[in-house]
Amino acid sequence: MSVFRINGDRLWDSLMTMAKVGATERGGNCRLALSQEDLAGRELFMSWCREAGMDIAFDAIGNLFARRKGLHDSLAPIVMGSHLDTQPKGGRFDGIYGVLSGLEVVRSLNDLGITTRHPLEIAVWTNEEGARFTPAMFGSAVFTEALSLQTALGAKDAMGISVAEALAEIGHHGTLPFKRPFDAYFEAHIEQGPILEDNGLPVGVVTGGQAICWLDVQVIGVGAHAGTTPMPLRKDAFLGAAEMAMALEALSRDFAPKGLVTVGQLEIAKSSRNTIPGSIQFTVDLRHHEDQQIHAMEQAVGARFAHIAQQRGLGLEINRHWLSPATPFDSACVAAVRAAVEELEYPHQDIVSGAGHDAIHLARHCPTTMIFIPCVGGLSHNEAEDALPEDVRMGCDVLLNAVLRRAHRLPD
Amino acid sequence: MSVFRINGDRLWDSLMTMAKVGATERGGNCRLALSQEDLAGRELFMSWCREAGMDIAFDAIGNLFARRKGLHDSLAPIVMGSHLDTQPKGGRFDGIYGVLSGLEVVRSLNDLGITTRHPLEIAVWTNEEGARFTPAMFGSAVFTEALSLQTALGAKDAMGISVAEALAEIGHHGTLPFKRPFDAYFEAHIEQGPILEDNGLPVGVVTGGQAICWLDVQVIGVGAHAGTTPMPLRKDAFLGAAEMAMALEALSRDFAPKGLVTVGQLEIAKSSRNTIPGSIQFTVDLRHHEDQQIHAMEQAVGARFAHIAQQRGLGLEINRHWLSPATPFDSACVAAVRAAVEELEYPHQDIVSGAGHDAIHLARHCPTTMIFIPCVGGLSHNEAEDALPEDVRMGCDVLLNAVLRRAHRLPD
Repeated sequence: MSVFRINGDRLWDSLMTMAKVGATERGGNCRLALSQEDLAGRELFMSWCREAGMDIAFDAIGNLFARRKGLHDSLAPIVMGSHLDTQPKGGRFDGIYGVLSGLEVVRSLNDLGITTRHPLEIAVWTNEEGARFTPAMFGSAVFTEALSLQTALGAKDAMGISVAEALAEIGHHGTLPFKRPFDAYFEAHIEQGPILEDNGLPVGVVTGGQAICWLDVQVIGVGAHAGTTPMPLRKDAFLGAAEMAMALEALSRDFAPKGLVTVGQLEIAKSSRNTIPGSIQFTVDLRHHEDQQIHAMEQAVGARFAHIAQQRGLGLEINRHWLSPATPFDSACVAAVRAAVEELEYPHQDIVSGAGHDAIHLARHCPTTMIFIPCVGGLSHNEAEDALPEDVRMGCDVLLNAVLRRAHRLPD
Repeated sequence: MSVFRINGDRLWDSLMTMAKVGATERGGNCRLALSQEDLAGRELFMSWCREAGMDIAFDAIGNLFARRKGLHDSLAPIVMGSHLDTQPKGGRFDGIYGVLSGLEVVRSLNDLGITTRHPLEIAVWTNEEGARFTPAMFGSAVFTEALSLQTALGAKDAMGISVAEALAEIGHHGTLPFKRPFDAYFEAHIEQGPILEDNGLPVGVVTGGQAICWLDVQVIGVGAHAGTTPMPLRKDAFLGAAEMAMALEALSRDFAPKGLVTVGQLEIAKSSRNTIPGSIQFTVDLRHHEDQQIHAMEQAVGARFAHIAQQRGLGLEINRHWLSPATPFDSACVAAVRAAVEELEYPHQDIVSGAGHDAIHLARHCPTTMIFIPCVGGLSHNEAEDALPEDVRMGCDVLLNAVLRRAHRLPD
């Protein structure tokens, strides 16, 4: 069975050329959503797409679609893509890799003289990062109607500029309908974690997105003077919170290796060096591949925290801030990626996406999957974010062959 | 042997009248050091002193001394006192009780027609609270030459107003020399802790101030994505800090009941809900009655924290921010208080001061001790700070009789 190859040097050159737009001093990128830098990045991409014979169109939230005609052009498109916006001190690969891999697939098909049965599209989703406007991933959320257009257009940045104003400023809004049918969606991305690198593998076959549960915890004790309150008479909210954090860590071992627990934020109210903390707020981030297990984790957190609070005579309130169920990717799309990577004989493993991606929204709209490549040191959202040219090339080879399989140009 | 009594109603009335100056909505007081409210409080006190036949003088840092002549007026004065400034939302007793108890002692001696051999003075120390200017207790610190006048005068409040400017504004500076000889210093104060109330006792014979050691701890891990970093690969600085807090609590049991430990402040650098904390700073407050034991505690903290950091692969830095050695009070002064309370037949116990007081500075200058009365719920630095009129009266009775003993008006 034949396999096809993309041009790794060309893809790398495009990545490095795009990285000059909004380049930061320490080798990263700053292209905040709908900013002039984002516009410049989009325009560079659009010029490349036009050179590759593609047509450009927008929808009302500024999602950009570059289209390559199919043999049967009325069929739903097979869509590749990701985003071009970055964190304020972001890297050169997060998002950009998925967009430019899509472009490289089209360029390679042009080189090979292959026209797919389905049309192909490359999507550039608006404001994936959520660094300028919240929520993150709102372009794909509005497209899939998980978020209303009105809400997204009304979101304002720190300067008070609305999305509607920013969109009007760069002119990237159009009339493509939301939720129009896609045959499939493939998103190539750096892993943003250390697993592939640790295992020495260039490709991850992403089987889905994990479930996420965010809790807000408040522990209420009694604030008192650190020098005059005997230990047995204290109701120290911080010691309670510390014991809860230890219990959380212990709990993660019961759900190992798929269960992840993190206390990312903690605030001591009216804190002072010589005052026993009377009130603490902290966040809990729970992750698991399976919905049933995330619920079991949430329940166990509640029970263990309540036990600690009771033993210490502390007040406790736990509120669920957000619950995002697990997102299993489409088995046929995952199978296409797996078949592609096996034919290419690239070392690989199955992996679950830990971070949020536009693909998580798309999975509720059409058959969807992702392809991961390693990033150096697992580092992302960081100017030092990096990836190896070899891995960049291999991931895009997988994308090309998976898309061709999906497009029925190759027999199963 | 005769005992004398103060006028409890008069003392209570004076406390309640003073509490109208800078009264806050919830029944507390706001008289920040050297503010117009502090000036008004001082002027009220000065008018009462003049009515009681006393002379007023200041030193260069604004400490106020009201003087009652002695039979041998060239002898060093026996000094009572405390402070009239408060926290921004402070109470009606912290400091004020020590000043107005001194006044009540003088008024009672006037009623009784007693002139003591030594002159008596009431000291109002400048800026005990440290709420407007730091450091706290700088009036007594400058008087005892623990702090230079220049440093104190240069301190600025949040508005950029210096102590020198604030002092000039209220005009409460004079020429009394620092470190002039005192025969003794007695400071009556609310306990600011729950011990006396818990034990149902109206009077604490204060035998000294405990040692205080303040540490700044930094724990360095690796910040990473909460959704993509497997638990075994994490270096979570917060979990390290939480385990250190647990170790600290365990350590307090080894030094029970005199050893006190508190983590009052903690900050997660660049904290976000879905980021594993990469760097944490927190404070440790250690207290013990004995210098040797505070050193042992500090050493144990270092060893246990280092062990935890090593096991977790975390970086650790511990810096000693401040060490205040234990301050044993003068045995003769303590004996005078104990004899007074026993003659009065008031229930009492020995107690060590957990908080900082002007008396801690004075103890390095002259024979010094303190007298504690309970405060309701152990609460202080709070608008709800409260004390029972009975306890207020009994504490001042003890002050009167202890001062008379010291002044050799009563045979031992």
